[in-house]
Amino acid sequence: VFHVKWEAAQAEKGGYDHFMLKEIHEQPRALKDTLSGRIAPDGSRVVLNEINIPQEQLQQINKVVITACGTAFHAGLVGKYVIETLARIPVEADIASELRYRNPLIDKNTLVIVISQSGETADTLAALREARRKGARVIAVTNVVDSSVARDADDVLYTWAGPEIAVASTKAYITQLLSMYLLGLYLAQSRGTLEDKEITQIITDLRKLPDKVASILENGTNIKEFVQKHCNCEHAFFIGRGLDYAVAMEGSLKLKEISYIHAEAYAAGELKHGTLALIVKDVPVVALVTQQALYDKTVSNIKEVKAREATVLAVASRGLEEVAKVADEVLYIPRTHQMLTTILAVVPMQLLAYYMAVSRKCDVDQPRNLAKSVTVE
Amino acid sequence: VFHVKWEAAQAEKGGYDHFMLKEIHEQPRALKDTLSGRIAPDGSRVVLNEINIPQEQLQQINKVVITACGTAFHAGLVGKYVIETLARIPVEADIASELRYRNPLIDKNTLVIVISQSGETADTLAALREARRKGARVIAVTNVVDSSVARDADDVLYTWAGPEIAVASTKAYITQLLSMYLLGLYLAQSRGTLEDKEITQIITDLRKLPDKVASILENGTNIKEFVQKHCNCEHAFFIGRGLDYAVAMEGSLKLKEISYIHAEAYAAGELKHGTLALIVKDVPVVALVTQQALYDKTVSNIKEVKAREATVLAVASRGLEEVAKVADEVLYIPRTHQMLTTILAVVPMQLLAYYMAVSRKCDVDQPRNLAKSVTVE
Repeated sequence: VFHVKWEAAQAEKGGYDHFMLKEIHEQPRALKDTLSGRIAPDGSRVVLNEINIPQEQLQQINKVVITACGTAFHAGLVGKYVIETLARIPVEADIASELRYRNPLIDKNTLVIVISQSGETADTLAALREARRKGARVIAVTNVVDSSVARDADDVLYTWAGPEIAVASTKAYITQLLSMYLLGLYLAQSRGTLEDKEITQIITDLRKLPDKVASILENGTNIKEFVQKHCNCEHAFFIGRGLDYAVAMEGSLKLKEISYIHAEAYAAGELKHGTLALIVKDVPVVALVTQQALYDKTVSNIKEVKAREATVLAVASRGLEEVAKVADEVLYIPRTHQMLTTILAVVPMQLLAYYMAVSRKCDVDQPRNLAKSVTVE
Repeated sequence: VFHVKWEAAQAEKGGYDHFMLKEIHEQPRALKDTLSGRIAPDGSRVVLNEINIPQEQLQQINKVVITACGTAFHAGLVGKYVIETLARIPVEADIASELRYRNPLIDKNTLVIVISQSGETADTLAALREARRKGARVIAVTNVVDSSVARDADDVLYTWAGPEIAVASTKAYITQLLSMYLLGLYLAQSRGTLEDKEITQIITDLRKLPDKVASILENGTNIKEFVQKHCNCEHAFFIGRGLDYAVAMEGSLKLKEISYIHAEAYAAGELKHGTLALIVKDVPVVALVTQQALYDKTVSNIKEVKAREATVLAVASRGLEEVAKVADEVLYIPRTHQMLTTILAVVPMQLLAYYMAVSRKCDVDQPRNLAKSVTVE
């Protein structure tokens, strides 16, 4: 009999070196669980039985406010884009610690969406309470059943990511993204802003995302090579436009949190209004290129940083292979509906941060100075 | 209407080492000129004869969109806060290169404000045209008479900063800020959202700003000391809440542009959601502390970075002297109306960037990679 001694923590990591890596690999399952039971059997509609907003109230909503902190706020930025595009309701996404102190324009015709993995984030909880005082209907998107935001909200949309142990959020974030798509479709359905066939198409593509995420996870080699070359850098920049900008923000935050590299995200078109001064030889620039419609514009920004001799790692959708002519390396993500790319594009960002942190011998799961759940203001 | 004559002699450095320093010192005059003729003789109202929006159309405005690039966008962030607070109209501030590509919710009941020093910024001009195609009324805030945005907008509010030569904007930015206050008051007056005495109070304080800016400029000593200690740093952070966050963003951009220090601004309450991992011994953190109502919260964030041994330079309003107990150094700005602090607080930010760049022997007026007016996309 061959005995292997495993410490409890190692066993919990299921063979992975860190909780973060394990949680990154749990994302296909987390997405499947979060989708489960929320699509009509014929794939024609999103069905959110847990949201009980009366039809009359739904019709009177003239504004959506999404509020959250940190990584969850980055999911909110995607939510703004998705809900405005699908349901044509104006959406404001704001940091909870900002929103709550500025006497925001929120009333009974405002739908407020708060996002918090733990459901205990102090500023998010306070913003939720302030919104309810002003008469708004509040939906909480949270990963913890019966958490404070779940209890205080009018409606709760649970992300079924399962317990997240690593401080840097991965599987909770990806299910928050999915929740934004579900809510965008739900609002679009209730307001009749999308044709049936468009809804069906998005839902069809949504259901394929878990397998596509799994396929990205099976193929992380290029990232490790890029990491080897750049693991001693102290600065990095992430650029993108539209939805890619929101993913760039999350990518830069991941890198900051666990590898302590000063990474910053920029709307690609903003670079030349100042930050280009920081782009010098060999600085790594991660460029998100998933949107066909913005392709030419983003490529022109990649050329700007290449002209200053930066090293560019592009994360691009299949079909946009021309980017290989301007970028130093390209990681491809599978094709999907143009609005759903965030769920695929974030995965290479997570792996990049992870392998950078490992190469730099950082404490991946417990980065310095940070707590998993920020329950103080 | 009062017209300012720009003479050739003004375009020389007039005894200053750099155009930027000259332009910083011209700010009291730029503010006076931009105010001139725009306040009723009895100081009771803002009078913007150049804005000709019919009263009926003004009443139907249900949303304001402010769009711009770079430094001008940071003025737009202040505009969002000011217009929402004074006129209680929802305001969206968005980067022009983002707004124009996302099919924004803009219609004939939207007032769009575009801000561009040169009036030739390509993305801003394109966003303006897109907004007009969607039927919106567009006000341009620009420093150049008969520039492209001035010609294409419905109404023009000129900033009378005079020609700005240095690439890093200072006096144009401060007059853009002033323009946001003028527009906020104008909209508040037309919609009756402020009491007369409140309008009079804000106008009284607005008129005192040029002299207060002059008093800050006479007293730059502490900044030079801070610069001596930190001029070799490669990272810096700027934190603030509310209006202070908007000024923090501008302060960090100035430092990036001309000193090539990787400076980044954070909403003070967001630090602990990730960026705190980058705060280590001796990293300079500039904390903006001008808002009485947010004082305790921001001080608590200063304590967080001090616990990681950062060096904190606070820029605080007179009356908030307690901050000296937690910050390493404090630069005080004169008291003013709580909404007007941005115009005073930005001045130490500009001087900090200027002296840092000089100490680091950077080309202050012509930073690498940057152009004064970005006329390409």
